[in-house]
Amino acid sequence: MKNFEYFNATRLVFGRGEENRIGELILPKLVENKTVLVVYGGGSVKRSGLLDRVITSLEKNNLKVVEFGGAQANPTMEHVRLGIQLAREENVALVLAVGGGSVIDTAKAIAMGVPYEGDAWDFFACGVMPKTALPVACVLTLPAAGSEQSIRVVISHQGRKLGAGCGVVRPYLSVINPELFFTLPEKQIRAGVIDMMSHIMERYFTQTEGVDFVSGQAEAALRSIMKNGLLVKENPQDYDAWSQIGLAGSFAHNGFYGLGHVEDWACHAMEHELSAWDESITHGEGLAVVTPSWMKHVWKENPARFVRFAKEVMGVDLEGDTEAIVLEGIRRLEQFFINMGAPITLQQLKAEKAPVAMLAERVTAKGPIGNFKKLYASDVLQIYQLAL
Amino acid sequence: MKNFEYFNATRLVFGRGEENRIGELILPKLVENKTVLVVYGGGSVKRSGLLDRVITSLEKNNLKVVEFGGAQANPTMEHVRLGIQLAREENVALVLAVGGGSVIDTAKAIAMGVPYEGDAWDFFACGVMPKTALPVACVLTLPAAGSEQSIRVVISHQGRKLGAGCGVVRPYLSVINPELFFTLPEKQIRAGVIDMMSHIMERYFTQTEGVDFVSGQAEAALRSIMKNGLLVKENPQDYDAWSQIGLAGSFAHNGFYGLGHVEDWACHAMEHELSAWDESITHGEGLAVVTPSWMKHVWKENPARFVRFAKEVMGVDLEGDTEAIVLEGIRRLEQFFINMGAPITLQQLKAEKAPVAMLAERVTAKGPIGNFKKLYASDVLQIYQLAL
Repeated sequence: MKNFEYFNATRLVFGRGEENRIGELILPKLVENKTVLVVYGGGSVKRSGLLDRVITSLEKNNLKVVEFGGAQANPTMEHVRLGIQLAREENVALVLAVGGGSVIDTAKAIAMGVPYEGDAWDFFACGVMPKTALPVACVLTLPAAGSEQSIRVVISHQGRKLGAGCGVVRPYLSVINPELFFTLPEKQIRAGVIDMMSHIMERYFTQTEGVDFVSGQAEAALRSIMKNGLLVKENPQDYDAWSQIGLAGSFAHNGFYGLGHVEDWACHAMEHELSAWDESITHGEGLAVVTPSWMKHVWKENPARFVRFAKEVMGVDLEGDTEAIVLEGIRRLEQFFINMGAPITLQQLKAEKAPVAMLAERVTAKGPIGNFKKLYASDVLQIYQLAL
Repeated sequence: MKNFEYFNATRLVFGRGEENRIGELILPKLVENKTVLVVYGGGSVKRSGLLDRVITSLEKNNLKVVEFGGAQANPTMEHVRLGIQLAREENVALVLAVGGGSVIDTAKAIAMGVPYEGDAWDFFACGVMPKTALPVACVLTLPAAGSEQSIRVVISHQGRKLGAGCGVVRPYLSVINPELFFTLPEKQIRAGVIDMMSHIMERYFTQTEGVDFVSGQAEAALRSIMKNGLLVKENPQDYDAWSQIGLAGSFAHNGFYGLGHVEDWACHAMEHELSAWDESITHGEGLAVVTPSWMKHVWKENPARFVRFAKEVMGVDLEGDTEAIVLEGIRRLEQFFINMGAPITLQQLKAEKAPVAMLAERVTAKGPIGNFKKLYASDVLQIYQLAL
């Protein structure tokens, strides 16, 4: 195990009805300036009445509300800049995201951008680290990205989809009420489930030795996500099953499953190129396509890790031939994705015409990606082609 | 699952040599007043050179050191009061514990007591909640109590051993270097391993439904602790195995494994009475004695929970007869304790003369204990007698 530092600074407030006291929950953070920028996406939080309930709670606590709707999947820099401008004009003290990962990432990018003198795209394109940010709080409506506990932000701009990350933008408070997930469409359910699994697998597939405890935690989390993912697909009103998904998804990306690991993140990078190329591609579905191909390409770098995955996560009980065990593990993962209704090929993703050679060059422009196996453009191209 | 709030405020710094930069790590907390009370136990941290290295690091960062040694297993109120007096006289700004759970609990009790007008025993005997406390940091030398990440403090006084707990005393920073565990005697190794297992089991055995994700995490943690516990007993210089134990022990008691649960804590209460009666009894060994008897007494309250424990934690692969599966799970837990060299009866603990009827009355003086099954004095007496 590598030496590490870990600090999980998000206060999690979990359970039925908790969003109705969001005003009371954030009040202690707002001593003098009581203006809150409420960031949300399309109409669903309006139609469901959630936005009204949140605003009622804020106003009941004498907070001033500034609304900023219109955040979209794969949030864009243009939209973030509008939010920064509004937040500055209104002298906002705190950014409250009401939504899923895209809304939260929009809120985080605004929170970083407000006190920054330059253009906020610097954080993504130039590796500038934010020194400070407005505090961010969340009411989660979609368990997937784990952004409600993470230090990461992903923004799209000019055909690129880039991430930044810094402790100052980690939400200090997140409310998760599994009831808010009851109305999610099936596509978002499966994309969310696959995204959170990927956050764990990007860390689990490591060459770092001596990480048995965290590996066991990751395996148990993946099993619970798969079991409960099928349950919520079957019955989207299953509170108990959503509770497991909501909790797992939130911990999946807060750093716990990577403690002391060299992490990988090649699948996320390859998927980000795909959904930057065609922003109608949903991140979680893109991951379902690239991940099994990545596995087939890299497993020989550490067969023991993939045997452990096959046995402990996918329940393969074969003995003997390593390759057969590993490939059966990957096949069962693909089968799970299929059972969730996800695509597992570029064709099923309607991305068979993606310019994969160009995307492979682009994703490796700054050097090889991944750590389980360092992937050069030729590796990435092979992985995309395996996924056709 | 119950609604819950979770905030894990401890910054964990983990790995080889990290204790040598403790001065640098705590420096940002000490803006004006730079006086640190260094709390430790007996001579072992002196003999090993650890205390010297810690003090060197503090002094190199221009911090003023006030030493307070002599903390003992089952720390006493008398000793805590001396520490409070010293900390006040020296106008201490931060309390640094260098040791295991008893040292950390001594440090926490001092940190609570310094700003409190009354006597610090009020926190334990009268349920007074501390409003504030000096910041506490830790360099851990014994993975067991999990006190380095927990809000709990246990202090002995006048034949009672009582706990208090409040977020203000949760250490804000803890350093864990598994190398510091290489010289632990076998008795402390087994007591530590059993104590951390108990912290998980006190939460795992719940009547709360809908907690599959956390249950899976708990089961995986228990399996990893048992596997690596045997490895460190065999070879106390096994860094990788100690890393798993160190990490598991620290997370075991930070609240993660109880998220959304009604927790139990009857075994801890019954053990505390034993080691308050005879303070030569080591907490972890006392737990090895009371836990299997508790299980035999309560399992019928929720057989499914005990079947899951037998299968998922103890690897029982019987089918059919519930009682046989449950009892085989308990037998295997006892066998693990035996393999670690622990006592599993009051006689082996040299406590066969314990006044169990009186202890059973005492532990239930304020009402029944436990939540998996509410235990009255007659239940506790039966459990002690089962353990004879």
